[in-house]
Amino acid sequence: MRCGIDVGGTTVKIGFIDNYKIIDSYSIPTVKDTLFDDVFKSIKEYCLKNCINLEAIGMGIPGNVRDNIIIKMPNIKLENVDINSIAKRYFPNIVVKASNDANCAALGEALADTEHVESSYFITLGTGVGGGYVFNGKVVDGVNSACGEVGHMFIDHIHNFKCGCGLTGCLETVTSATGIVRLAKFYYKQFDTTISEDMSAKEVFDKAKEGDQLGVFVLEMVSEYLARALSNIAVVVDVECFYIGGGVSKCGDILTKCIKKYYDKYAFFAVKDTKIKLAKLGNDAGMIGAAYL
Amino acid sequence: MRCGIDVGGTTVKIGFIDNYKIIDSYSIPTVKDTLFDDVFKSIKEYCLKNCINLEAIGMGIPGNVRDNIIIKMPNIKLENVDINSIAKRYFPNIVVKASNDANCAALGEALADTEHVESSYFITLGTGVGGGYVFNGKVVDGVNSACGEVGHMFIDHIHNFKCGCGLTGCLETVTSATGIVRLAKFYYKQFDTTISEDMSAKEVFDKAKEGDQLGVFVLEMVSEYLARALSNIAVVVDVECFYIGGGVSKCGDILTKCIKKYYDKYAFFAVKDTKIKLAKLGNDAGMIGAAYL
Repeated sequence: MRCGIDVGGTTVKIGFIDNYKIIDSYSIPTVKDTLFDDVFKSIKEYCLKNCINLEAIGMGIPGNVRDNIIIKMPNIKLENVDINSIAKRYFPNIVVKASNDANCAALGEALADTEHVESSYFITLGTGVGGGYVFNGKVVDGVNSACGEVGHMFIDHIHNFKCGCGLTGCLETVTSATGIVRLAKFYYKQFDTTISEDMSAKEVFDKAKEGDQLGVFVLEMVSEYLARALSNIAVVVDVECFYIGGGVSKCGDILTKCIKKYYDKYAFFAVKDTKIKLAKLGNDAGMIGAAYL
Repeated sequence: MRCGIDVGGTTVKIGFIDNYKIIDSYSIPTVKDTLFDDVFKSIKEYCLKNCINLEAIGMGIPGNVRDNIIIKMPNIKLENVDINSIAKRYFPNIVVKASNDANCAALGEALADTEHVESSYFITLGTGVGGGYVFNGKVVDGVNSACGEVGHMFIDHIHNFKCGCGLTGCLETVTSATGIVRLAKFYYKQFDTTISEDMSAKEVFDKAKEGDQLGVFVLEMVSEYLARALSNIAVVVDVECFYIGGGVSKCGDILTKCIKKYYDKYAFFAVKDTKIKLAKLGNDAGMIGAAYL
C-alpha cells in the first residue's frame, strides 16, 4: 500500500492507495506550526491500527519543492521545510517524496489513463492556472520547481490584462475561473444574455451549453487561448497527451471539443495529433499522483 | 573513442570524439541511394586503419527520427530508414543511436558547458529556427520527434508573417536569418540606414553594432521576440540554461545581452534567473552531441 498526501490551505487529504486506486482516505486540519508532524503521526497511527504495510509516502505541496525541501508555501506561510528530517522520526525506513501539487495531479492523471502514456502535460483551470509535465512516467519539477507554471505564458495580446504575478497577458488572466468571469464582464453589454451580472465561470459555461450568445462567445475565446497555449507547449515538449483539469473543466466535453477545434488550426503539423483529454480524477488526482512520485 | 556523425544535405561530417573533444574529423559526400552504407563503411575503414577501439556511434539527422528509425529527411528525400539494420552489417557489437540534428547540437552544447548542466534548451537561429531539449543529461525527442520545434511557436501577432509551415506569426518568421532580413526590409524606408537593400542578416546585426538605426531597431525587435519565446519555454520546462546558436548567433554577446534585457521584463518571477548563453561549438555541436546520444 502507498500513501498519497494532498496538502491544502485548510485541510490535508490523506489517501491510501493500491494499484492506482484510493482504498481509503480522510482529512486532517492544516495547522501551520505542527503540519508535517500531524500528518506523519496520523499516518503512522492509521497504518498500525489497520495493519497496513506501507511501501511509500508521497506529498503534493501547494508551493515550490526542490529535492524534498519545501522552498515556499505562500498560502500556508511556511518555508524551508526539510520533509525528510521530519518523516524520518516516524518512518525511518520508508521513502518519502514531495513535489508541487499540480505536478502530483499531472502524474495522477497520467497514471489513471487507460491508454499507457509516457509523456503528458496537465493543465488545471481553477482560481488560477497551473500545470505539470510528466516525462517517462515521472514528474519533471524543473530547476526552480516552476515547471508547469504555464498559467504565466504570454498569450493574450488583445486585452493584455494584468496578472497577479505582475506580468500582463498571462494565460491565467483569460482562462482561469476568474479570467472567464473577467472576459464575460468585459463583453457583457455587447450581448443579449441571460447570464447574471455577478456570474461564476460555471454559469458562463453552463449558459454556453444552452446557446447563450455571451456564454458561447466567451467559451470560444477561452478555448482559442488555451489552444494557442497547447500549440506552444506541444513544440516545446512534444507530449503524447494533454489533460485539462481543475474546476473549470467540470463543464465537460464542450470545452475540450472547442479547444480541439482551435488546436487543429494553430498547432504545428507534426504535433497536430496530440490528444486533448478531460482530466478524470478531479480532487483525487493529487493524492494518487503523490503516492507514485 | 566515440564517433559522431552529422548528416547534411550535401556532405556528411564524421567526427572521432574523446572526452567531449573532436580528435579527428572528415566529410564524405551525401549520396542519397548509398548514404548510410557509405557512412558506416567509411567509419569502419577509418577505425581499422587508425587502430581505433570504437565504443559508440551516434548520428544527427536533418529530419524526424523515432527509435532509431528515420521517419523522414525532407531535404535528402529519404524516409523509413532503419539505422540499426544497416549499422549491424558493419558494427554488429556497437550501439548506434540516431536523433534529430538540432537535438544533437543541443546535447553537444550542454556537454561543452563547463558548468555542469542537467537541463537546458538550445535554440538555433539559421535559415530556419530549430531547437532541442536536454533533460537529465539526455536528449528529449518527443513522441512525434518534434520536441524542439520552437521555431513554430506563435509569437508575432503584429506582422503575422506567413511561415513556411503554413501557420502565421511563428518565431521563425521574425528571428531566423531570413526573418531578420524580412524585418529589416519591412522597416527599411523608415530609417536613415547604411544597410544595403539586398542585406544579409549578418549585415543587419553588424551594422547594429556600429549603431545603425535600422540595425539597432531590428536587433531589439528580434531580441524581444526571442525573449518572449524563452519566457514561454521557461514556464513549460524550467531548464537551467538556454543556449542560443546557429549562424545568426555569430554576432555574439550583443544578441544575448539584448535578449536578456527583454527576458528580464517578460519572464515569470520564478524563472528570471535562467541563464541565457551563446552556444560555443558552432558547426561541431552536432557531431559532439551525436557521439553521446
